[in-house]
Amino acid sequence: MGDVPLSHPRYNSLMGRKLLTEAAADGLLADSALIAHGRGEAYDYLLGETTCESAQAAIKQSALLMKQAKKCVISVNGNAVALAAADLIRCAAVLQCPIEINIYYRTLERMTALYSRLERVRNEVSEGGAPAGWEGDWQSAVRKVAILGIHPDSQIPNLEGPRANCCSDGIFNADVIFVPLEDGDRCEALMEMGKQLIVVDLNPLSRTARRATVTIVDELMRMAPILLSYLVNGVSIAQPEWDNKANLEDSLVVMLNYLRK
Amino acid sequence: MGDVPLSHPRYNSLMGRKLLTEAAADGLLADSALIAHGRGEAYDYLLGETTCESAQAAIKQSALLMKQAKKCVISVNGNAVALAAADLIRCAAVLQCPIEINIYYRTLERMTALYSRLERVRNEVSEGGAPAGWEGDWQSAVRKVAILGIHPDSQIPNLEGPRANCCSDGIFNADVIFVPLEDGDRCEALMEMGKQLIVVDLNPLSRTARRATVTIVDELMRMAPILLSYLVNGVSIAQPEWDNKANLEDSLVVMLNYLRK
Repeated sequence: MGDVPLSHPRYNSLMGRKLLTEAAADGLLADSALIAHGRGEAYDYLLGETTCESAQAAIKQSALLMKQAKKCVISVNGNAVALAAADLIRCAAVLQCPIEINIYYRTLERMTALYSRLERVRNEVSEGGAPAGWEGDWQSAVRKVAILGIHPDSQIPNLEGPRANCCSDGIFNADVIFVPLEDGDRCEALMEMGKQLIVVDLNPLSRTARRATVTIVDELMRMAPILLSYLVNGVSIAQPEWDNKANLEDSLVVMLNYLRK
Repeated sequence: MGDVPLSHPRYNSLMGRKLLTEAAADGLLADSALIAHGRGEAYDYLLGETTCESAQAAIKQSALLMKQAKKCVISVNGNAVALAAADLIRCAAVLQCPIEINIYYRTLERMTALYSRLERVRNEVSEGGAPAGWEGDWQSAVRKVAILGIHPDSQIPNLEGPRANCCSDGIFNADVIFVPLEDGDRCEALMEMGKQLIVVDLNPLSRTARRATVTIVDELMRMAPILLSYLVNGVSIAQPEWDNKANLEDSLVVMLNYLRK
């Protein structure tokens, strides 16, 4: 896939596709990761490839939860790293929380490749400019972001196999977990641990979407800078009691209207 | 991905995923083929992963067109070979028409890999049993199926690059082309040549779906044996005048109802 011109009307979608195929070639992804991305593309198409109002509200609510957390963590898999590593590291720097790598098909090769990629991006982000509105020492804030996951010392209960592995400094003791692109089983196991779970899922009907505390029905590359901006600048409007089910239904209506017209 | 038990409620979907990731490892697919498959998975999910009535009608209409054709050809890309090579060769044997490999990102390596795979499957199919209802010498019928595409001698007008290449014994002079998983540009160029185009596309809103003569909104692995059966046993009920737009709308309604419930 060649370069994608910024002027292309479907720039974001084509850029996502390019980042994913490159990450696959770099050994960051499991076999089925590209297929999962394709499913997301289809649902995003039904959203008109824009961040809808209900997604905006969910991102706001997420920023609130993450800022109010006692211990927040950002959990990433291969697709999340491929699509949004830089913005997720920026979010972690603002919150001063760790990033934990947690993948479904865990192999040492992939864990190491993801760790190296995140380290490299953390370096680039620390050398780059601070987000608009940020006050303080950006370089030192970014450098303090811990990248966890390589040496797990805990297990998520009620989950079999290596995907139960996690870190006590990260997922295991966090009260709020931001985990884009989570699988259904892990989402349920984490909810049963009493955690508040924020997920990014383009399929509003998925098990993950229906179980999470806050579901952002949006594309990760598109929503990450919006979340970052809320984390830096705060959420001005007081949010009403969060009703995730109602919010999911609003996203469904957007898709229904798209199919109808 | 491990073995998929036949009893699994989502056997077809998981088997498709397995076949595609294996084909990718075997070098049959372009980078973006897995992503395209994922998009299909998402739309198939909205269909309830079954062949709906409007798809049944479209398959019937396709069988009629293919049987009435002066020169029919079955055009395949990497995904079609990975998912349904055997059944498509069976269809070609029944119709005594050629199969032509025609891929978007044409490289000699992939063309050769696809040709070898089709040759191997043609052998297996000729050694295997004839489809129910078939009368005649199955082995010789299968062996006569030509596999075209490696040595193109013609070009589809109004199409740039290597994907314009095709064979005069196949696509170029055919009046009816069965082409699962076609891209929009090629679909339009072939329609402009005055051909009747039968496509299999899970997205009823795609350019290909809206432009084709007959659009089968169904999953290829699931619809191929149904098409084969109509080709062997004939279509008993006379079809009314074909209205592809109305048929597409019926498929959309199935998806809308799924999202609504």
